[in-house]
Amino acid sequence: MKAIVTGAGGFVGRHLVERLLAQGYRSVTVVDRSFPDGFCSDEPRVLRLVGAIEDQAVRTEALARSFDVLFHLAAVPGGAAEADPPLSRQVNLDATLDLFEEAAAAARRPRIVYTSSIAVLGNQLPDPVLDSAPLDPAMAYGAHKAMAELALADMHRRELVDAVGVRLPGIVARPPAPSGLKSAFLSNLFHAFRQGEAFTSPVSSAATFWLMSVGQCTANLAHGAKLDASLLPRNRTVTLPAIHCTMAALVAAVAHATDRSPQLVRYEPDAALERDFGVQPALVAAAAERAGFAADNSLAALVERVLQEL
Amino acid sequence: MKAIVTGAGGFVGRHLVERLLAQGYRSVTVVDRSFPDGFCSDEPRVLRLVGAIEDQAVRTEALARSFDVLFHLAAVPGGAAEADPPLSRQVNLDATLDLFEEAAAAARRPRIVYTSSIAVLGNQLPDPVLDSAPLDPAMAYGAHKAMAELALADMHRRELVDAVGVRLPGIVARPPAPSGLKSAFLSNLFHAFRQGEAFTSPVSSAATFWLMSVGQCTANLAHGAKLDASLLPRNRTVTLPAIHCTMAALVAAVAHATDRSPQLVRYEPDAALERDFGVQPALVAAAAERAGFAADNSLAALVERVLQEL
Repeated sequence: MKAIVTGAGGFVGRHLVERLLAQGYRSVTVVDRSFPDGFCSDEPRVLRLVGAIEDQAVRTEALARSFDVLFHLAAVPGGAAEADPPLSRQVNLDATLDLFEEAAAAARRPRIVYTSSIAVLGNQLPDPVLDSAPLDPAMAYGAHKAMAELALADMHRRELVDAVGVRLPGIVARPPAPSGLKSAFLSNLFHAFRQGEAFTSPVSSAATFWLMSVGQCTANLAHGAKLDASLLPRNRTVTLPAIHCTMAALVAAVAHATDRSPQLVRYEPDAALERDFGVQPALVAAAAERAGFAADNSLAALVERVLQEL
Repeated sequence: MKAIVTGAGGFVGRHLVERLLAQGYRSVTVVDRSFPDGFCSDEPRVLRLVGAIEDQAVRTEALARSFDVLFHLAAVPGGAAEADPPLSRQVNLDATLDLFEEAAAAARRPRIVYTSSIAVLGNQLPDPVLDSAPLDPAMAYGAHKAMAELALADMHRRELVDAVGVRLPGIVARPPAPSGLKSAFLSNLFHAFRQGEAFTSPVSSAATFWLMSVGQCTANLAHGAKLDASLLPRNRTVTLPAIHCTMAALVAAVAHATDRSPQLVRYEPDAALERDFGVQPALVAAAAERAGFAADNSLAALVERVLQEL
């Protein structure tokens, strides 16, 4: 198997590239505006392209490589997109559609694994959330992700691509650097407990989330490259299953696993943040499970895995 | 009131401009690639702009006029869009989003009345179709209309525009000329009976449709310009109520109103056309009705009105 991975220098992208190499991929073309120092520098199967996907020359160069699957992860994340919707349109919509169309022209019906987001469902979710939950985004990021989902489904229907879209829940634990993600506090909790530092939670202890470890996330993305596509629904995109937990339960699990006191956490809820990221009801991701996607085994397993991956 | 109408030279657009003038609009800027000879030529309130909305200079010139409401009707219709999806993307998505953004920059939160389509719901409809029916387009046209709906809702949420989207059912009776619309046979039925000519129906007598007269359609669009926007749902777009009838009932009503024999019709169903346009179940357009939109009073009333408008 040969892959192209956009956004490969990012948090999920780096972990995905490692997994693909471990799975024996023959080549992985990685595309991003920048990469961490030394990223895959001694790996002959990795072809590195530095540039932005909104640059047509970069897309052309990437797609000139032989590939079986295109993982499209590059995106302007939620907080940054909301701060600059025209940039979000340029990257998350226009360049994304261009990339899909150019991939269809470069290869015969290539598999495209597209990372959408639960942001397409918005912040006024039905309870429980079923696969029938409507597209109802509440941020520019979610709107553009939803639009790209529709475009990809239509290209699949026209038999130009073989599309697999997955809506990611909150992925933990991202590095502590500013990421443009409003949900970064969920990752910062892990870093604080690891260091034994006090942590101020911007959501209440009763806030609820959908979470996935980055290891589980990349396992799902790699599965997306090889799954039997007839298992997917007509719109080709599924909401991934996730661990559903409260902030209090997450704090307790992280405290237990790090042998620290839950008292490290002080709660100072921000109403807007809690509304946008802290009221996720039960999730029944039946379509994704039928297609072989999975959540972490349990909250405790997720926390263990995340701490190992830090 | 001052309006801009894109696609004003088209079938619905021409009727809409007439209605706006009759309602006392102080100015109507009409934009289209072409207009029928003599269109509004002796009407000083009409400012005519010949050009395509995918041409930025045309959009800029149109939006330089003072306006309270922008009616955006210009589109590549369904059949033509499916034959040329890149053109559909250019007009129905890219230029449409540009127009919305440029309108927001040109005026303070302008009312935008956007003609979407029931094509956003696709061809595998729930029965009955409620406002909760998902976006599930089955053609490039419907996909791009659904994407523009999402973009417009997000711009409304960001308070850049005051958005009113309406999904049009089949509008009758269009002129007999080729229109790029796969559903043109519904209009051609009226023309044939008017002339007393034989008509070959490409759908079975049991096929079912949602129909609206062009007069009712333009009444709804004009209502969209002045309605209390707080009556609309969060996504700002409603599926318009419509007359729900079978092909047999439509034929009987047109035959009765024109004093012809229903035997003028011979049925030669095309399976693909019937699947895409002839299996419309009951429609409960509650959100639109709450906002004051309406269907024709009855099938007989629709037929009478259409024949008068021919």
